[in-house]
Amino acid sequence: MSPRVAVVGATGAVGREMLKILEERAFPVDELFPLASSRSAGRVVEFRGEPVKVQELTPESIGRADIALLSAGATVSREFVPAAAKAGVTCIDNSSAFREVDGVPLAIPEVNPESLEGSPKIIAVANCTTITSMMPLGPLHKAASLRELVLSSYQSVSGAGWKGVRELLDEVTKLQGSEEELGNPDISKLPTGEVFDKTIAYNVLAKIGDFEDDGYTGEESKMMSEPRKILSIPDLLVSATSVRVPVVRGHGVSILARFDRPIAPDEAREVLARAAGVTLMDDAAGGIYPSPMDSAGRDDAYVGRIRQGSNPNTLLLFSCADNLRKGAALNAVQIAEYLFPA
Amino acid sequence: MSPRVAVVGATGAVGREMLKILEERAFPVDELFPLASSRSAGRVVEFRGEPVKVQELTPESIGRADIALLSAGATVSREFVPAAAKAGVTCIDNSSAFREVDGVPLAIPEVNPESLEGSPKIIAVANCTTITSMMPLGPLHKAASLRELVLSSYQSVSGAGWKGVRELLDEVTKLQGSEEELGNPDISKLPTGEVFDKTIAYNVLAKIGDFEDDGYTGEESKMMSEPRKILSIPDLLVSATSVRVPVVRGHGVSILARFDRPIAPDEAREVLARAAGVTLMDDAAGGIYPSPMDSAGRDDAYVGRIRQGSNPNTLLLFSCADNLRKGAALNAVQIAEYLFPA
Repeated sequence: MSPRVAVVGATGAVGREMLKILEERAFPVDELFPLASSRSAGRVVEFRGEPVKVQELTPESIGRADIALLSAGATVSREFVPAAAKAGVTCIDNSSAFREVDGVPLAIPEVNPESLEGSPKIIAVANCTTITSMMPLGPLHKAASLRELVLSSYQSVSGAGWKGVRELLDEVTKLQGSEEELGNPDISKLPTGEVFDKTIAYNVLAKIGDFEDDGYTGEESKMMSEPRKILSIPDLLVSATSVRVPVVRGHGVSILARFDRPIAPDEAREVLARAAGVTLMDDAAGGIYPSPMDSAGRDDAYVGRIRQGSNPNTLLLFSCADNLRKGAALNAVQIAEYLFPA
Repeated sequence: MSPRVAVVGATGAVGREMLKILEERAFPVDELFPLASSRSAGRVVEFRGEPVKVQELTPESIGRADIALLSAGATVSREFVPAAAKAGVTCIDNSSAFREVDGVPLAIPEVNPESLEGSPKIIAVANCTTITSMMPLGPLHKAASLRELVLSSYQSVSGAGWKGVRELLDEVTKLQGSEEELGNPDISKLPTGEVFDKTIAYNVLAKIGDFEDDGYTGEESKMMSEPRKILSIPDLLVSATSVRVPVVRGHGVSILARFDRPIAPDEAREVLARAAGVTLMDDAAGGIYPSPMDSAGRDDAYVGRIRQGSNPNTLLLFSCADNLRKGAALNAVQIAEYLFPA
């Protein structure tokens, strides 16, 4: 029998994408329960051409599902997931709530499918930027054993949800006609909003999430700890800088990777050309390289700019993926497909 | 007697900034010769409140100056600088033409003023992104001896001149009202222009300059070779990824720096707090960090996000500077001030 599927946070940026992807991939949904906070309950979403009313998320409403796909933030997941899982619901969670919990798989189906063995009831989806870097690094690690990563990200505003997109576009509208002033702006008069703590239009912000005691942001901590768990390399060295850029959709990551043995760009290209979920866009002679916009609305991670680093064991590369799809909703649905094969 | 000053490329983005900065800093100009290609000759620029007609750049017109500040590209500099320098004109060149030539100083006055000793007649201004990273790294190198750099840049479109700025703003205008499509764009229908080889509005492009045989771009090669010469560290390891972002003005660089000895963030902050030309914006508790827009129209490099890397010898930091001012025009005028003290 097909599973009943709850989508928690169904009206959010990732939730909408989950509904779309379940439909696109013809995931065998017996019954769909779009769930959200009481504020959004009563709104209507569309699924397979039919309107479906959003219900309030409660222990009962989530408990009616076989699978719950959650993207309503860590606080909501912490409140509802443990009981739902205990009651037998397979909870696939896009938040950070359970990523670091021992025994909870942090799963990217193309990279560490083995983590999904044993019918786990709580599965965490990795951070969108982590997924963008892991898609090429997983196969390269299998080939040459990863030792160290240096990551700098280029993250789109939809990573902060619809409100992030609206804030960027509002600021662009407000700045219209005064773009020349951007050469010598009066910072105090620039438009700002609720989501980002400085103007994001025509700017980049090297702060995503809150600052922690060591000076790293919450986002950077995720980018540093998650690869260790996903690749099962407890002593992997990772240094990360996460930066918000005025892009609507699609994250980019500039990666330096140091391996256990020499690996040439040509070998890396061979590995990545046959890697599942990766599209190689890497042809200097042809001017081919990936950008976040190439990945927007698409499933694969787009990888290119592969170069030898300053010693034969290091590679540089640039990876782009749609943060709402592969970085979140698609990855969650792929986990569901793995656990509930048609 | 005050020097006669030629500004070559006077109508360009950097040229205009040079005129503005000569005036702002009251550089003692006896006579100003704004020079440009025959195409721009006859246009009028303003200097100290007076209109001045732009003349055609010829060996004779540049030869009348005591100092020539050039920003008309490497081809023009290669054609005119050697003869002018031989005739006694001090040529301060913003192009890449002479940066790697032995005996030509690659000068950032706050970082390597010693390179300006001996009345050189040709002086190269470093690449704008190099200057953005060298402003904090110069003083940190003096403190702890730099061994390796990993750089990822966030470079504004004015680095490609006015035409780069126009292309970004044109694309933003064309996309108005269809921003939702950026979630799933038909790449073939997106606006593109002459300067950037993909859409730069709402996107980032990991390619600046042409690809070279080793897969690096021209811009990345500059970011890797110039620090070795500026800091006199021939064996400095540098890995660079240069990325264009939809910012009008101000470059950012994400830096990982490995030193010869342990250096804590607090020590780095002390060094940078007293470094000339550097403004420290680094207070996690207060939410203070630099963005390119903070640097636009301003003289200093703005530096923050200082963190310990994965071992005690490495630091992470983020530096921003106005690419047209400190990254080009201001640095050139500062060199002139050093060589022609009032």
